[in-house]
Amino acid sequence: MLNVLFSARDGLWGVYEEPLRKAFASRNLSINLQPDFSDPELVHYIVYGPTGPLQDFTPYSNAKAVLNLWAGVERLVKNPTLTIPLTRMVDTGLREGMVEYVTAHVLRHHLDTDRQVLNQNGVWDVVIPPLARDRTVAVLGLGALGEACARQLATLNFNVLGWSRRQKKLDGVSCFCGEDGLREVLSKSDIVVLLLPLTDGTANILNADTLALLPEGAAIVNPGRGALIDDDALLAALGSGQVGAATLDVFRQEPLPAEHPYWHNPKVTVTPHIASETRPETASEIIADNIHRNENGEPMRFLVDRSAGY
Amino acid sequence: MLNVLFSARDGLWGVYEEPLRKAFASRNLSINLQPDFSDPELVHYIVYGPTGPLQDFTPYSNAKAVLNLWAGVERLVKNPTLTIPLTRMVDTGLREGMVEYVTAHVLRHHLDTDRQVLNQNGVWDVVIPPLARDRTVAVLGLGALGEACARQLATLNFNVLGWSRRQKKLDGVSCFCGEDGLREVLSKSDIVVLLLPLTDGTANILNADTLALLPEGAAIVNPGRGALIDDDALLAALGSGQVGAATLDVFRQEPLPAEHPYWHNPKVTVTPHIASETRPETASEIIADNIHRNENGEPMRFLVDRSAGY
Repeated sequence: MLNVLFSARDGLWGVYEEPLRKAFASRNLSINLQPDFSDPELVHYIVYGPTGPLQDFTPYSNAKAVLNLWAGVERLVKNPTLTIPLTRMVDTGLREGMVEYVTAHVLRHHLDTDRQVLNQNGVWDVVIPPLARDRTVAVLGLGALGEACARQLATLNFNVLGWSRRQKKLDGVSCFCGEDGLREVLSKSDIVVLLLPLTDGTANILNADTLALLPEGAAIVNPGRGALIDDDALLAALGSGQVGAATLDVFRQEPLPAEHPYWHNPKVTVTPHIASETRPETASEIIADNIHRNENGEPMRFLVDRSAGY
Repeated sequence: MLNVLFSARDGLWGVYEEPLRKAFASRNLSINLQPDFSDPELVHYIVYGPTGPLQDFTPYSNAKAVLNLWAGVERLVKNPTLTIPLTRMVDTGLREGMVEYVTAHVLRHHLDTDRQVLNQNGVWDVVIPPLARDRTVAVLGLGALGEACARQLATLNFNVLGWSRRQKKLDGVSCFCGEDGLREVLSKSDIVVLLLPLTDGTANILNADTLALLPEGAAIVNPGRGALIDDDALLAALGSGQVGAATLDVFRQEPLPAEHPYWHNPKVTVTPHIASETRPETASEIIADNIHRNENGEPMRFLVDRSAGY
């Protein structure tokens, strides 16, 4: 019998209890799943949501791993009390939702559908947009989410450029890496999608210097992390016309305060961190699979490399 | 030397002359291309735009074929003076543009991106949409355009149902035909895309009876032909909530008059016949290829079946 602690913000226990029990049962794992254990030393695994109350892992001296419910681990990797293995969530549902959001908003900027959505004024205003084959889209970050988005955009004939820390190779996507690669990618891209993990190396990756590399009027789509963008630099670039439009789903402070200039800039579309979220059924399968692997001496999947930060 | 008449509305000669000459030259066709011939009996082929002045084909007694610049031929097939072979345009650029428009607007309705685009009011209003795998999209019409759209939507995991006059078979798309098939498709579909040719059999295919089959709140996307929809029935269905939203690109009268109720209905998005258009470079290749085929005794591609009406 394994003791598994579910520790996340209020409300999630009700959402996850049943799918987790089902996923454990389907693997014949004998598990005592609880949202609380009187004695932390009894806990073998921690299913974890970073916005919950648990921040000090020291009392869980017998725990074998922390299994994160979300893809982003930027706060967890800096927690000095967390010394056991940590896994990120790589979830089919999360990936599919992200592909849908990114494809929808890249097409929205590409075709400028807002031109009609915002102007139902009786004026027959014919502007035929170019074809996707004549647009270049950059996907910064080629992890599970970025790779899936880049591949989907390529099926629509966009000229897709990918950029990542380490050189990757994807069919139908021109891949770049490194500082020079970033500059080359940005200088060619009509639309830029940010799907990088937040690390010391990626914070403010879009700043005054890098935004200036873009073709004038480029669009930004950020469903990654808010701190990937220097907000003041983006607002200045929107003001000058260097950036034509931005759709932002993530912010340094969430909810984004009602008085934030992003809400009031006509070139910015704020979406309230809805690009994608972990889906309990598919995520529970990933967690159960990783506990099953670890108990059978197999390596867990999606282990976080703490030196890289993700 | 072949005499080829280019007959289309004002302005198109300037757009098509160069790409047509280039396409003819690349096939070593010796062609005298003109927007006018003093003697109609000299003309061997007619490259044709239906909105131009030429409506009586009787004087062109030596012409071998009419090569239409657009996909839709509903007016031409009813022209009694046109008795020689007629080809429709099936153009890569037209198809790609249509796939982009349909994918963009299906995703727009699926994710309800208008909720944010139209409400940048500082309210952090979190609604996570379902995944595409939990939505059913119908594509009515599985010609070159409908098939390409259905295939693309399937790559996004939508549950795609196709309907056509004759039974078809497409990987990843459940295909239906006939009156019963239409009723089954409509009764299951959250989003309906109209890409049927306009014929006596398809006019008003969405009417009070068929709209009532849809799940409540379904969305309609019509980049096909305006007369596929009974406008009064659609307005009534929007009023009752039976239809939740409609994006319409084509209308019985174009430009759509400024006073038309579609412009003023908040559930309707009017787009000004921009879903896709023939691209001169790729279309010129199709036309040159067909003349080359006919001169060499090979069958022309995309011949219109006048009894079917398309």
